[in-house]
Amino acid sequence: MQTLAKTEPQLADLKSRLTEIHDINAAASVLHWDQATYMPPGGAAARGRQIATLHQIAHEKFTSSAIGQLLEDLRPYEESLPYDNSEASLIRVTRRDYDLNVRIPSDFMAKFSNHCAACYNAWAKARPENNFAAVQPYLEKTLQFSREYANFFPGYEHIADPLIARTDYGMKAATVRSLFAELRQQLVPIVEKITSQPPADDACLQQHFPETQQLAFCHQVIEKLGYDFGRGRKDKTPHPFTTFFGIGDVRIAIRVNENDLAEAFFSTIHEMGHALYGQGIHPAFEATLLANGASTGVHESQSRLWENLVGRSRQFWTHFYPQLQTFFPSQLGNVSLETFYRAINKVQRSLIRTDADEVTYNLHVMIRFDLELQLLEGTLAVRDLPEAWNERYRSDLGVVPSSDSEGVMQDVHWYSDTIGGLFQGYTLGNLMSAQFYQAALKAQPEISAKINNGDYTMLHNWLKEHIYQHGCKWTPTELIDRVTGSDVTISPFISYIQQKYGELYSL
Amino acid sequence: MQTLAKTEPQLADLKSRLTEIHDINAAASVLHWDQATYMPPGGAAARGRQIATLHQIAHEKFTSSAIGQLLEDLRPYEESLPYDNSEASLIRVTRRDYDLNVRIPSDFMAKFSNHCAACYNAWAKARPENNFAAVQPYLEKTLQFSREYANFFPGYEHIADPLIARTDYGMKAATVRSLFAELRQQLVPIVEKITSQPPADDACLQQHFPETQQLAFCHQVIEKLGYDFGRGRKDKTPHPFTTFFGIGDVRIAIRVNENDLAEAFFSTIHEMGHALYGQGIHPAFEATLLANGASTGVHESQSRLWENLVGRSRQFWTHFYPQLQTFFPSQLGNVSLETFYRAINKVQRSLIRTDADEVTYNLHVMIRFDLELQLLEGTLAVRDLPEAWNERYRSDLGVVPSSDSEGVMQDVHWYSDTIGGLFQGYTLGNLMSAQFYQAALKAQPEISAKINNGDYTMLHNWLKEHIYQHGCKWTPTELIDRVTGSDVTISPFISYIQQKYGELYSL
Repeated sequence: MQTLAKTEPQLADLKSRLTEIHDINAAASVLHWDQATYMPPGGAAARGRQIATLHQIAHEKFTSSAIGQLLEDLRPYEESLPYDNSEASLIRVTRRDYDLNVRIPSDFMAKFSNHCAACYNAWAKARPENNFAAVQPYLEKTLQFSREYANFFPGYEHIADPLIARTDYGMKAATVRSLFAELRQQLVPIVEKITSQPPADDACLQQHFPETQQLAFCHQVIEKLGYDFGRGRKDKTPHPFTTFFGIGDVRIAIRVNENDLAEAFFSTIHEMGHALYGQGIHPAFEATLLANGASTGVHESQSRLWENLVGRSRQFWTHFYPQLQTFFPSQLGNVSLETFYRAINKVQRSLIRTDADEVTYNLHVMIRFDLELQLLEGTLAVRDLPEAWNERYRSDLGVVPSSDSEGVMQDVHWYSDTIGGLFQGYTLGNLMSAQFYQAALKAQPEISAKINNGDYTMLHNWLKEHIYQHGCKWTPTELIDRVTGSDVTISPFISYIQQKYGELYSL
Repeated sequence: MQTLAKTEPQLADLKSRLTEIHDINAAASVLHWDQATYMPPGGAAARGRQIATLHQIAHEKFTSSAIGQLLEDLRPYEESLPYDNSEASLIRVTRRDYDLNVRIPSDFMAKFSNHCAACYNAWAKARPENNFAAVQPYLEKTLQFSREYANFFPGYEHIADPLIARTDYGMKAATVRSLFAELRQQLVPIVEKITSQPPADDACLQQHFPETQQLAFCHQVIEKLGYDFGRGRKDKTPHPFTTFFGIGDVRIAIRVNENDLAEAFFSTIHEMGHALYGQGIHPAFEATLLANGASTGVHESQSRLWENLVGRSRQFWTHFYPQLQTFFPSQLGNVSLETFYRAINKVQRSLIRTDADEVTYNLHVMIRFDLELQLLEGTLAVRDLPEAWNERYRSDLGVVPSSDSEGVMQDVHWYSDTIGGLFQGYTLGNLMSAQFYQAALKAQPEISAKINNGDYTMLHNWLKEHIYQHGCKWTPTELIDRVTGSDVTISPFISYIQQKYGELYSL
């Protein structure tokens, strides 16, 4: 207890500094949310600068020597506490982030941030013009920046490792590569078997569905699933996202297409999965570094769990489809549950990742991951990227983009951040979603019966108790081990796919 | 030119620091806008803290010794330039603000800001309960804080002067008092004459007007008057306001009452007046301290010019009333222009400042100003404030509040900021609105003919050229002198009132 008394002022000082930094980052998120939802065009120029300013101030404050000193002073206190203790965890996670951030000079951050803005603008212009040549020099510079970033962390096994650690702490290129190789080996024959059959008919989704009713149905469903509108909102945006300003304000922004029923619904339930995670963090973690998801992959596991394992299941629609029909009687009144269920689970070889079904989706991700690694390793030049992209689509998915716009320029990621670290989380998330769902059903088999009645409270509570409330107290590896007793592994995902699509396609 | 070369790095450094500070304040404004428009209830606690954090960071950065040193280093450069030069003005205005802000300890700011939040919450609870006793201790503390603030500026003539200087730089209690005394003397007999006649019939405004059409009409009108929706938006809020994130993003938030047509329209055109000022600032001032209004009073002069001198004029409605009728044919189809015009200019002795007509409005303001002065001087105790309030309403307006909720607790100002400095601007604004409008018509008599055709471009351009574009380059006194050749004075306002209401009430 002597240690505690001595370090109390330091702990209070650390917490107060972290709250300030959290508030600055939360402010930047509000600015970003506004930019993506309501901001008039005239606000664009100033907004980019305002967000960059806030990020830079937060970075400077976080990497100050004062924080470094406090973390040193608090080390004995931390070591005197159990690993799981919240204060020990706060000090530990803060130190981890500090050690990472302190290596990156503020100057680099500012230059890279400016470059990203320029690169994004170039991409936004070049993509509709199908002009990869226009973005190539930007992308080359991004690659340089990405390598420079990695080199702030000498001693890595693979140059992509420091970039992967930014988003999926504890993961390494070698581990991901071997997981992905195994996954590809399992998936390719499944895709082949499915696509050798006649495609599912999804015409029922391609009718006119007025926006107001779509939004009302989505609202009703996610409220029922546990999204708290008193601590969030749902707005429209071109590129769906979830944003976190605090445990009491976690918003989703989604896209509506009046000619495709799937777009709004699945973007809503996907973002809701992210948002349930944010709303479920323990209130004691408010405004601390612990009030974050464990990693990009773990976050994605929650959006995909709700979107796919729940939202594309027969069980879900057995309950909700009659409700959906009351919203759209003329469009769906004569469409059977079975037809609808097959439509929302149509599997096809396609070009666009974000439109891909859950069977082929990971193939899209793995192409990007492999190409990133080659770019970083220097075995692929940026100028050869479009051809390499097309070649991989031909070999892995059996389709070839007719233009770079629907090929190498389709995703914003490389054009607005680093090359490396931004894609693996999608597939890791899919794998973990199956692991977590399996663990939940194993621990509480009653969940399934509840779900049959449209009651997701028990599932939601289980996820809250075992995942959400802990924020990023544990590393992704620790979390998945505690929850599932295993490392990230492909078998629950493959079993899920085999069972669901085996039944759908009589494989 | 030697001076210039030597000080270029300092000027660039100053500008870059000011941009950062501007961005932080702009971010706080976005957070406030969101709080007042879309934020879910769960966001409230964190939001107050986030805004306070940003303001404190901006204050610390602005009052840093580095800025003080740069201002010293730049003094010779400033003095080598003409007064009106933009860079000289930027240095001058920055120094003025710096000298003011540097006297206020960050510690005081933080304590006062916390107190204001607590006081506001107490008020929000006590007001519907009509419980002045519950806010009295908070208000006493606010009075202490307000005096403490004033005492950071020793040497004042009147203790209210430093508080008035916060919002209406260059104005002093003595000047305002004497202006107001003169104004009261002129207004009281006019109010008496008008209210001795039967009241105007405003039943035409108290019908059901669906929100969608009200908003559409407001949108159409302010777009026509010159509000640029590409650099702004219009949202709903309980307490109308305008907010400025940059010259390219100036938003208004307004209130709609489906049972009172006047509420949305006049709050919209009022806020639009503020917004035209913000949108009209010279783009070269973007993200500098010069991108502000000259003072609260000057800002209010623009909202009131558009709201009253334009928006409540016969000329305006001769053009726009037929359009309004097409939006509400069943409600207004049989209401004549004359009836409508008299309804929107109904004069009455009333209790609530924000609902008051333009003839009695200033009487409300002056009551508050006088009471503030007495509180600060110590000639009135907070506990005696409700009685003093009611007494003044009886003597000045001939009406007595039946409760403190519609009396001393009606306005948020004293319960969310200082006592002193927050009310005089409303009446100064009214006086200046008449001065500026008179100057515009004198300089360009064609404005009137254009207005008859519903074309406000020439008026808008004149205001832009002579007022808006200059931001706060000049003090309010300098600005009004340059534009009107006079100090703030009551005669144009009184002439305007006499002429308009003389005609309406055959005085």
